Amino acid sequence: MLQPVTIQGMRILGIDPGTGITGFGVIEADKGKFTMVDGGVIRTPAKQALELRLETIYDNLKEVISDTKPEVAAVESLFFAQNVTTAMSVAQARGVVLLAIIKAGLDHEEYTPLQVKQALTGYGRADKNQIQQMVKTLLNLNEIPKPDDCADALAVAICHAMSTRL
Amino acid sequence: MLQPVTIQGMRILGIDPGTGITGFGVIEADKGKFTMVDGGVIRTPAKQALELRLETIYDNLKEVISDTKPEVAAVESLFFAQNVTTAMSVAQARGVVLLAIIKAGLDHEEYTPLQVKQALTGYGRADKNQIQQMVKTLLNLNEIPKPDDCADALAVAICHAMSTRL
Repeated sequence: MLQPVTIQGMRILGIDPGTGITGFGVIEADKGKFTMVDGGVIRTPAKQALELRLETIYDNLKEVISDTKPEVAAVESLFFAQNVTTAMSVAQARGVVLLAIIKAGLDHEEYTPLQVKQALTGYGRADKNQIQQMVKTLLNLNEIPKPDDCADALAVAICHAMSTRL
Repeated sequence: MLQPVTIQGMRILGIDPGTGITGFGVIEADKGKFTMVDGGVIRTPAKQALELRLETIYDNLKEVISDTKPEVAAVESLFFAQNVTTAMSVAQARGVVLLAIIKAGLDHEEYTPLQVKQALTGYGRADKNQIQQMVKTLLNLNEIPKPDDCADALAVAICHAMSTRL
């Protein structure tokens, strides 16, 4: 595992974008210690028109940013292994996620799933459960955050904290 | 060709989304006659960070809407034949395009390239040049609008006008 060398008191918003479910997690990284500030998911109904779903994601994310006041956002980057329809759906959501980030004046970094795995567990072949266990451990939580998309978003936020050198 | 049966004086914004270049065209459809109100493209530099490019698209589109005051937007739908990287790029742009549309309170319809071809030329195998010639003819223009993305956006707007029955 990488040593968590972080800027003092940095507040990071991690996001795992998706049209059906967008995970978010806000952590505070201070001297290598992490605390969870907020975390959850934005769900949108599959039956709803796409533009309404994108608006829901945009508006809710704006609210999360304004409530939790992060200094930087870390977003899981697109990966292309999954099927095209899923990838499209993620890409559209990602468009409005990035817009919400820049409209809020936040810096933004992207991390691939591989980078997240490597940052949290030290190697790229960690499975989902190992990542989630690390999220729980590093944030001193009693349980793995649910649902998965929230845990994934927190993992991206932690990855950013670990990747940022003083 | 379909008979252009349209709502009187309907103003339609057609959009052909893309991260590098988003085409737009505003037409007025009145009793089966079409006039071009505005048309152009929003270009974003390839070197720029993605979130800045998406912001440029969003902000410029907002301006086009506020300047031209369309009642409805017609957007070219995603098509999956092209390579995944291009499709991703289009999907991200499309996310912010749809957000700009709903934030402006516009109705919105989507049309596949096939639907656009069929509406404008009556058959689905028309080539790009035939479509562009029809755009020029139907809008009574002296030349085919340039660049292609602008002509495509106008074609989508015309397609909507032709598909809308009283």
